[in-house]
Amino acid sequence: MGGDHGPHVTIPSAVEYLRLDRKTNIILVGNPDVISRELDTLKVSPGEQLRLHPASEVVSMDEHPALALRNKKDSSMRVALDLIKNGEAQACVSAGNTGALLATSRFVLKTIPGIDRPALAVVLPTMSGHTYVLDLGANVNCTAEHLLQFGMMGASLVSSVENKPNPSIGLLNIGEEEIKGNDVVKQAAELFRSSGMNFYGNIEGDDIYRGTTNVVVCDGFVGNVALKTSEGLAQMLASYLREEFRRSLFSRFAGLVALPVINAFRRRVDHRQYNGASLLGLRGIVIKSHGSADSYAFRCAIRRAAEEVRGGTLRNIVEHIEALRYNAGHNIGQPVSVE
Amino acid sequence: MGGDHGPHVTIPSAVEYLRLDRKTNIILVGNPDVISRELDTLKVSPGEQLRLHPASEVVSMDEHPALALRNKKDSSMRVALDLIKNGEAQACVSAGNTGALLATSRFVLKTIPGIDRPALAVVLPTMSGHTYVLDLGANVNCTAEHLLQFGMMGASLVSSVENKPNPSIGLLNIGEEEIKGNDVVKQAAELFRSSGMNFYGNIEGDDIYRGTTNVVVCDGFVGNVALKTSEGLAQMLASYLREEFRRSLFSRFAGLVALPVINAFRRRVDHRQYNGASLLGLRGIVIKSHGSADSYAFRCAIRRAAEEVRGGTLRNIVEHIEALRYNAGHNIGQPVSVE
Repeated sequence: MGGDHGPHVTIPSAVEYLRLDRKTNIILVGNPDVISRELDTLKVSPGEQLRLHPASEVVSMDEHPALALRNKKDSSMRVALDLIKNGEAQACVSAGNTGALLATSRFVLKTIPGIDRPALAVVLPTMSGHTYVLDLGANVNCTAEHLLQFGMMGASLVSSVENKPNPSIGLLNIGEEEIKGNDVVKQAAELFRSSGMNFYGNIEGDDIYRGTTNVVVCDGFVGNVALKTSEGLAQMLASYLREEFRRSLFSRFAGLVALPVINAFRRRVDHRQYNGASLLGLRGIVIKSHGSADSYAFRCAIRRAAEEVRGGTLRNIVEHIEALRYNAGHNIGQPVSVE
Repeated sequence: MGGDHGPHVTIPSAVEYLRLDRKTNIILVGNPDVISRELDTLKVSPGEQLRLHPASEVVSMDEHPALALRNKKDSSMRVALDLIKNGEAQACVSAGNTGALLATSRFVLKTIPGIDRPALAVVLPTMSGHTYVLDLGANVNCTAEHLLQFGMMGASLVSSVENKPNPSIGLLNIGEEEIKGNDVVKQAAELFRSSGMNFYGNIEGDDIYRGTTNVVVCDGFVGNVALKTSEGLAQMLASYLREEFRRSLFSRFAGLVALPVINAFRRRVDHRQYNGASLLGLRGIVIKSHGSADSYAFRCAIRRAAEEVRGGTLRNIVEHIEALRYNAGHNIGQPVSVE
């Protein structure tokens, strides 16, 4: 029940989500009094589809991940992840402290055997549709082997939720030629080439929004900078556009006339629809919502969780690790079964 | 005389530049026949302000930098850099092969003592003005010491051409807290803190366009990805906006009414005005224009070169190395004099 706005956003969002998706059940984890009060306000009673599960503590947004993990054993975050571990839930959606969610989910759920590090994947819009980018900041010092695993997990995610059997993977670099890039990226390209995966090759920053590949692989530092830079640029352009439409009486009039078009444009680039980063590589589905998500944005994160459960993302990752092992001779894990 | 469009763009651009700036002289370096033909077309004769210097070879856009350096000793690029070395010119502007320009200028001009690696700096627009970002791709494997030098060179550039005595420096990271980031960035932050420079601290990707600091420091891999990602996003948003204004009869009408406003917006975000990346750290001023620059964009790159010469960017970098040495005890070079 975290995030910047807490239960006032997440609970109405969950209730609204269930109105649109009758096949999903949601367990609200947190302080029972707070949850009950919120449900009362909404005139909703808990039932089969919407259950309550108590948790007495809350991880605050600026709490150190290691301290949260050590000291808050009954936090809503920790309890929700325990529900996955015990088989009572199949996914966890949180708008809370990112570092704590990464650390706690890794501790509670463990990684899938063969996966060294979980990675955060987000969907971004492109000229022709959308693409999946990972890692977005879970890992800042990556090896080539890590990048290979990110590519495999990204492809598993896309094939399971988008019904694309063999998604293309691009390796984010600073040039398309094989000689370009830093040492890790060059090694990763070699691993990809002999992996049997649908590896497109090196791509550049502008290929992300061009939609050149279905999956874009990069280390968490680069991915985070690319994402945040995009946010900053979009905000600046929006602010410039607003200023120009307010500059004079005429431009205000033009803005009024163009308003329906500007609004259609705004809906199309509304970043809320892409809310919900998938934390891939764990023995359970974990979705990180933006901390400042509103009700609509948080619903998009819940939908993402439901899609991954239904699409069998977890099983897909497990199967692809095996395929990697047999196809390319990379011994990056033993076959396992995950339910 | 390189770039995607060659002398057909660079020569008219240089001629036009001289009409606007009577205090600068330009030497056109390249095939004399080609240059003379182009000047004839423009009805311009060479003179004191516009001279010709012959070079018999051209480095092609896809030529391997090392081969260009070894085999093309009379290329226009090499000859232009030799003119700086011999004191006949104070700056070189090229729209040619980036890798070859980096390699050749480093070989011909050498780095300023105390500078390990030259870095590419560009100006980007922000909410409140503009900021200087480096490195943009000259260096893909950087140490903390390199990043420190980039910061110093960026600050030297800003103070010399913007008349800002003590520009603020931000270190591009994935969080503002000191514990965030990869090992190199963490070490670099420590070096900056004890350097005596105006170090703002860690900044994130969105701070670039927010204009949080005057200088943004990052390694060339991250900087290149951030820049290219920005280009891709801007193109996508422009294409979305165009599509929305073409969707229906009404939206076409709205587009007509809003055209003056859209055009004002377009002029404001016109990336051509930011053309011209400064290759800093060499014993001479070298400006890399975008290969696809048109006449206006190339003129902006020439203006940048002139501003750096007049502002004394080179001397500023040399002085700042000394200051770094004395203030913070970092022995990164001996004082030298550069003319």
